[in-house]
Amino acid sequence: MSDTPEYRIEHDTMGEVRVPVNALYRAQTQRAVENFPISGKTLERKHIEALALIKKAAARANAELGVLDGDLADAIADAADAVAAGQYDGDFPIDVFQTGSGTSSNMNTNEVIAELATRALKAAGSEKTVHPNDHVNASQSSNDVFPTSVHVAATSALLNDLIPALTYLDASLGRKAAQFKDVVKSGRTHLMDATPVTLGQEFGGYAAQVRYGIERIEASLPRVAEVPLGGTAVGTGINTPAGFPQKVIAILAEETALPLTEARNHFEAQANRDGLVEASGQLRTIAYSLIKINNDLRWMGSGPNTGLGEIAIPDLQPGSSIMPGKVNPVICEAAIQVAAQVIGNDTTIALSSTNGAFELNVGIPVMAANLLESIRLLTTTARVMADKMIDGIEANVDRARFLAEASPSIVTPLNKYIGYENAAKIAKKAVAEGLTVREATVALGFVERGELTEEQLDAALDVTTMTGPNA
Amino acid sequence: MSDTPEYRIEHDTMGEVRVPVNALYRAQTQRAVENFPISGKTLERKHIEALALIKKAAARANAELGVLDGDLADAIADAADAVAAGQYDGDFPIDVFQTGSGTSSNMNTNEVIAELATRALKAAGSEKTVHPNDHVNASQSSNDVFPTSVHVAATSALLNDLIPALTYLDASLGRKAAQFKDVVKSGRTHLMDATPVTLGQEFGGYAAQVRYGIERIEASLPRVAEVPLGGTAVGTGINTPAGFPQKVIAILAEETALPLTEARNHFEAQANRDGLVEASGQLRTIAYSLIKINNDLRWMGSGPNTGLGEIAIPDLQPGSSIMPGKVNPVICEAAIQVAAQVIGNDTTIALSSTNGAFELNVGIPVMAANLLESIRLLTTTARVMADKMIDGIEANVDRARFLAEASPSIVTPLNKYIGYENAAKIAKKAVAEGLTVREATVALGFVERGELTEEQLDAALDVTTMTGPNA
Amino acid sequence: MSDTPEYRIEHDTMGEVRVPVNALYRAQTQRAVENFPISGKTLERKHIEALALIKKAAARANAELGVLDGDLADAIADAADAVAAGQYDGDFPIDVFQTGSGTSSNMNTNEVIAELATRALKAAGSEKTVHPNDHVNASQSSNDVFPTSVHVAATSALLNDLIPALTYLDASLGRKAAQFKDVVKSGRTHLMDATPVTLGQEFGGYAAQVRYGIERIEASLPRVAEVPLGGTAVGTGINTPAGFPQKVIAILAEETALPLTEARNHFEAQANRDGLVEASGQLRTIAYSLIKINNDLRWMGSGPNTGLGEIAIPDLQPGSSIMPGKVNPVICEAAIQVAAQVIGNDTTIALSSTNGAFELNVGIPVMAANLLESIRLLTTTARVMADKMIDGIEANVDRARFLAEASPSIVTPLNKYIGYENAAKIAKKAVAEGLTVREATVALGFVERGELTEEQLDAALDVTTMTGPNA
Amino acid sequence: MSDTPEYRIEHDTMGEVRVPVNALYRAQTQRAVENFPISGKTLERKHIEALALIKKAAARANAELGVLDGDLADAIADAADAVAAGQYDGDFPIDVFQTGSGTSSNMNTNEVIAELATRALKAAGSEKTVHPNDHVNASQSSNDVFPTSVHVAATSALLNDLIPALTYLDASLGRKAAQFKDVVKSGRTHLMDATPVTLGQEFGGYAAQVRYGIERIEASLPRVAEVPLGGTAVGTGINTPAGFPQKVIAILAEETALPLTEARNHFEAQANRDGLVEASGQLRTIAYSLIKINNDLRWMGSGPNTGLGEIAIPDLQPGSSIMPGKVNPVICEAAIQVAAQVIGNDTTIALSSTNGAFELNVGIPVMAANLLESIRLLTTTARVMADKMIDGIEANVDRARFLAEASPSIVTPLNKYIGYENAAKIAKKAVAEGLTVREATVALGFVERGELTEEQLDAALDVTTMTGPNA
Repeated sequence: MSDTPEYRIEHDTMGEVRVPVNALYRAQTQRAVENFPISGKTLERKHIEALALIKKAAARANAELGVLDGDLADAIADAADAVAAGQYDGDFPIDVFQTGSGTSSNMNTNEVIAELATRALKAAGSEKTVHPNDHVNASQSSNDVFPTSVHVAATSALLNDLIPALTYLDASLGRKAAQFKDVVKSGRTHLMDATPVTLGQEFGGYAAQVRYGIERIEASLPRVAEVPLGGTAVGTGINTPAGFPQKVIAILAEETALPLTEARNHFEAQANRDGLVEASGQLRTIAYSLIKINNDLRWMGSGPNTGLGEIAIPDLQPGSSIMPGKVNPVICEAAIQVAAQVIGNDTTIALSSTNGAFELNVGIPVMAANLLESIRLLTTTARVMADKMIDGIEANVDRARFLAEASPSIVTPLNKYIGYENAAKIAKKAVAEGLTVREATVALGFVERGELTEEQLDAALDVTTMTGPNA
Repeated sequence: MSDTPEYRIEHDTMGEVRVPVNALYRAQTQRAVENFPISGKTLERKHIEALALIKKAAARANAELGVLDGDLADAIADAADAVAAGQYDGDFPIDVFQTGSGTSSNMNTNEVIAELATRALKAAGSEKTVHPNDHVNASQSSNDVFPTSVHVAATSALLNDLIPALTYLDASLGRKAAQFKDVVKSGRTHLMDATPVTLGQEFGGYAAQVRYGIERIEASLPRVAEVPLGGTAVGTGINTPAGFPQKVIAILAEETALPLTEARNHFEAQANRDGLVEASGQLRTIAYSLIKINNDLRWMGSGPNTGLGEIAIPDLQPGSSIMPGKVNPVICEAAIQVAAQVIGNDTTIALSSTNGAFELNVGIPVMAANLLESIRLLTTTARVMADKMIDGIEANVDRARFLAEASPSIVTPLNKYIGYENAAKIAKKAVAEGLTVREATVALGFVERGELTEEQLDAALDVTTMTGPNA
Repeated sequence: MSDTPEYRIEHDTMGEVRVPVNALYRAQTQRAVENFPISGKTLERKHIEALALIKKAAARANAELGVLDGDLADAIADAADAVAAGQYDGDFPIDVFQTGSGTSSNMNTNEVIAELATRALKAAGSEKTVHPNDHVNASQSSNDVFPTSVHVAATSALLNDLIPALTYLDASLGRKAAQFKDVVKSGRTHLMDATPVTLGQEFGGYAAQVRYGIERIEASLPRVAEVPLGGTAVGTGINTPAGFPQKVIAILAEETALPLTEARNHFEAQANRDGLVEASGQLRTIAYSLIKINNDLRWMGSGPNTGLGEIAIPDLQPGSSIMPGKVNPVICEAAIQVAAQVIGNDTTIALSSTNGAFELNVGIPVMAANLLESIRLLTTTARVMADKMIDGIEANVDRARFLAEASPSIVTPLNKYIGYENAAKIAKKAVAEGLTVREATVALGFVERGELTEEQLDAALDVTTMTGPNA
Repeated sequence: MSDTPEYRIEHDTMGEVRVPVNALYRAQTQRAVENFPISGKTLERKHIEALALIKKAAARANAELGVLDGDLADAIADAADAVAAGQYDGDFPIDVFQTGSGTSSNMNTNEVIAELATRALKAAGSEKTVHPNDHVNASQSSNDVFPTSVHVAATSALLNDLIPALTYLDASLGRKAAQFKDVVKSGRTHLMDATPVTLGQEFGGYAAQVRYGIERIEASLPRVAEVPLGGTAVGTGINTPAGFPQKVIAILAEETALPLTEARNHFEAQANRDGLVEASGQLRTIAYSLIKINNDLRWMGSGPNTGLGEIAIPDLQPGSSIMPGKVNPVICEAAIQVAAQVIGNDTTIALSSTNGAFELNVGIPVMAANLLESIRLLTTTARVMADKMIDGIEANVDRARFLAEASPSIVTPLNKYIGYENAAKIAKKAVAEGLTVREATVALGFVERGELTEEQLDAALDVTTMTGPNA
């Protein structure tokens, strides 16, 4: 054991606290570490970045508005940049499950930046010191900073991470839609044989579904990118200089290159995180879209011999520890599990709405953790789906066409010649006796009786023609 | 327009109210009708029955404990019997979405019974009148009566309706398990070809799953059948005579033939409806079980020509307005939709837990409506599934066996002769070259090299043998 | 018993069926009635209306495109109008829990309209008859008609019912915001005393929250108002004349005065109901908003003597069957229960996404029933909230101000004079010793030491000033 | 850069893979690492432990049943012990979001144990080698091993971690119930003043609620502790020696000291994870219980000056970065956020039920991760609640009694003297005129008129007496 002390003494308004000697944080962070030994999970990287950038913007705005010394503001901004860049993530040890306002994490940010800034000033020969509350947190409250940080991080993750990933997935699906545009296969409704479609039409539908997901995100962004900063403690902006919200948000928007806007109503913005609930609802819808796409893909790839076998999904790894040679649609399964996680996270986020009362919601940290995780998971999953699965899918063209022609529903175009009820007789006979639809039509005398000609029959039963409306 | 007044004037502690002239209810019911024009949905039948039986039991207990005149008690009991039997459901017009304690529905019951009892006394020549609060509600509060009524109705519906219906479904599945015990088919894991099972094994699994559902209900019953009655306003039992909870609950248990017990802790019982949440959670699990069973069934029945086609589900109705002859697994689909409703109802019920504060949860009516609906839906669905679908399912024996033998995973028993890695080579060769597993085994020289004999190979590749452990 | 037969015989492609003699519907409706004795719940009124209007638009489009006789089209359109107007709702007896495509309800519509149209033709002396499939359903499939009907009904209910109701609630809240703009009260964060706000600011926040709800609905509408009509069986538009989707949707949009658009991708539109999931997600967010507003209101109105007592909520009905004189915030409670129902319905709707495979989702009826119910419940609730509660709320001005001044957090403006840590000493001393913040400030010598003047202290501690940013 | 190769070449049935040179795992693990770069989250510690203990038990059972060489079995068992003890967690790098069967993690376990066992044999001079599939996985499949590992880990976590933690919380609450048994306070229903209770009664209710949570876990255990081991690939037990399930489960139960039982129906057990859904449902109910308890506590502790102020919750950390001296109920908030997480996790788990088809559910890894996280979070939270909050709560006795006496609902005991309607007049007068209930009673002449005596009035209005039933 060494003689070096492992702890130093810090204080806050409640008294003294022992803090690890090398920690950049101070008393309040340490209290929170001790108060919340709950999950072991800490803030998402993007969340720390957003907190730091808010501190930088606030320092700049405070300096411009004359409520913060310029040297201190510079030092705070420099320190915030380093924190934003991820250099000090290890000094953000507080559990996600903490005070519901995120005050602990706001103070953690204040403390680390105050310490870094004070050190830098000292190194530069200054005697000035930076105080976590009076300087780093000037014109701010946890109650506007912390929710703002979530909105900033979410906006960034949606715009910079998820939308590009979904666009990437859309492109991958679109390439397959083009590749498979002439692959005729059986449609299926209620899982039962229906009229034909092309495999390209199906992939085109998946691509469209992904693009609609992007639209859904975009539709929610106005209320995600709107931030409560400037409202301080309760939305009134107490302890802010006039013009602060406009200035700080303009700086923050520029700094982050995000379309951030000031809350149109600071009391709504302070008390509610409905924008996050809405965004999560859109992610939830996207997750359900991914379930549909992946379920279709793995069913089309089912087999090789006892399933539908219409497509081949790339082999990525041995599929069974006991059944030799088995290969499974593992990316589909991983993606569906991700979707289930996103849907569960959405429950957590939405339910946390009920944790709001008067001027504050006290479920923000858990909302943040779940929302940012959901965005991150969907982002990686969209790319993994494209790279490891969609891009490599091949059609089993012959089998697909064989099944399309075997569907008794190809009788459908005969409705216009002989009516729905007669057509039903043909379909039933075909299935019951193992005939083709053509054979059953002839056997029932429709051609013989002149209700339609052989040429009409042949044209009507062309499965490729059936994949579009009448000419 | 007639001269007959359509309304009469009633009063309560807040003043006068116009009530429909023929209504059995009085002022408080009418106020509630006017206050809550929300959904048009009223209490479930079983719920009205339970409320009435509580009033009867309370009248009896009050009379026995000397706090209610015997004549009044008799009149109340008779009136309650008529209400319980459903004769006056039309006099229970209050919306489900009402005061969170159900006070309006409790007072509705008090008022209707008071009116009926007073009329009966008058008809019998008595001058006594029955007061809704002072007599019908004596020794009670909405805060113990209304939640008790939900627990009683739920216990009855679970024991008398749902468990018998699930038992009925279990029997139907069990008969099919016996019928199909020798029908070999391919197992499927990850939707991919696996080693064989029998169709009977699968149906036996479904039957077991349904029985586990019954166990789940039974496991929750101790806390559903435990009732807060006797706690009155806040759990303290204020305004009850000594011994009231024990007596009234004993009478109620006998009257209903249900295993009702007194709350072990009246403060827990008064403030929380966790027992209902737990019961709903079990229903939710049963709903998910039904989804699995119905999904399997409709996939096995998919086709007739482009799907798995291992079973035939009874034809119940034409399946398409455009595709002639199409028939769909409609009972499966209805059942899955019921399951989705039960799962959504569960969300409503569980979320309503957050509507509790201190001595009362004020989300009881919506919990009741959803829980009793869920039980009712599962009850009808279990019987419909059995009667209209399961009982009529037939196996496509030849196709099932053909697919079983086509699965490359039947190579699995060779592991013990030649090891997993060699077996994988066989499976891969079989799939790639369209060979049977036997052909691929021979082609790769395993018999020639003496690693296993032809006899061992034949025995190992018997798909029926594969449906059990090694002898 | 009379000699009149109670049933008549109808047939469809599966054979004969006994139908109630006076029913307008025919065989397929009757089969569905018998197949689905599940819930007793039938289609929402708006849903029947939408189905009928689609039939009218299709008849018109078919006639214009030359695939339907003009007389038949006219007869269909007239019959559809009558059905849309609600004259024949009793002839739509099929359970919500039915075939997942809604084919039964589509055929119910086809059958009723065919019967009405045939009768009208006959009454007019025509010998023409209208066939449910070949005429009423011409160029259509349940698979495009039924989902289209849900989107149409939902679009109508959102635009014509819910948005006006939310606008009405917004106005009610806005009036209160104006009325209470000078009522100072304590802010509360974490439920603990915070710096002051005005009651008007709080109501303004609630109003904004409701307006954001309207924005949320509007943001989702582009994907709700987009309909699959024209895709027929599987999205390919099989059995439609060229130009049909454009024409039929244009007619339908005009007829309904709704901003309906054709699906940009018919395969996405056919297979998925993500637009409904998205819309439901927005309703879910609105429901959580209502929970917050109603929770705040009932807490502010709590008491009269043991709670916060800052506002008085109108007395609507006696609140307890045992505690005389008690009055409760019953509209808040009803609204919160509605919110819980909407949130549960959302679970049902979203989960039903997993019920999609290939070209069809087979959970549409349950999605429709839940979505339309949610819209209806929110509509009535928004109006009931405004009319029966918000409009009548009064402020307890004196008590609100008394509490505002009692909050130790009014020390906050002193930060800029003496720093956060010194201000904390004042607040702690005030609470510990039962002093006012002013008294504690003086007692700790801050004025005496000249750290701030008495005038500064008085100005800083003005609670009204604290309800905005610094001048 | 060094000359040392960073990778070595491993192979599996699909070919060669580069594996980090120091990794204990082999090709299949490495493939999975590369295939699933999704979340960065790996298996829970308890899950790895359970997997290893299954391998140990299987080795022992295989040896006893003569299908595994004793030396190999010993080597496997020793290696498994080391893995179970946590010595090699770093060699389990596979993402939670992986193949839905958990095959990757099962093979990871097989590979690490095979490597460790082979090294140990070599070190002991043996030339034998242990193969991941043929030896470590002998008589097993991922499809029985992996779900069994989840059930084992969950059973252990419930019995060894969560139930003790809830018992600990129950004890803490129970001590407070005793301490506060004479502290009279106002009851509150609908948040409105009700008849009195004791603070001890409330804490007793909370303790009971926690104990019911324990009962809920215990009620689900029979179906959690029932494991599919022995079913191998599809439930048939293919490739197991006779008697294997009984033997291996007996060994495993003894090794873990858990009440594990063999699946009563291996097909139910193989295909469904309903037992996990059920268990999660119970955790969800417990989570809602914690929300209620923590909401009550923080409301009772609200203030210090503008809230209810009936109890004092321990001060743990400064509560605001802007409002000096503020302290918040942070443990309540953390606990409520944990509850929201558990409830969201439950959604994920339950929804994953839909990911089952035929003989396998392919959502097991995400179910496992969420279930084990939920148990872990509830465990830490129960202890943190007790240690950092409940144990330190103090009653504000005088304020509590003052409020109890201020409640107009204390008029309730007068019902029996003067009837509910008269009592309501008293309550209304008291509130309207700011009188005590006693004053209002007298003012309305009830004593004067002799409807009750002064002595009866005094006795009736004793708030302590009101906390129980009539004597």
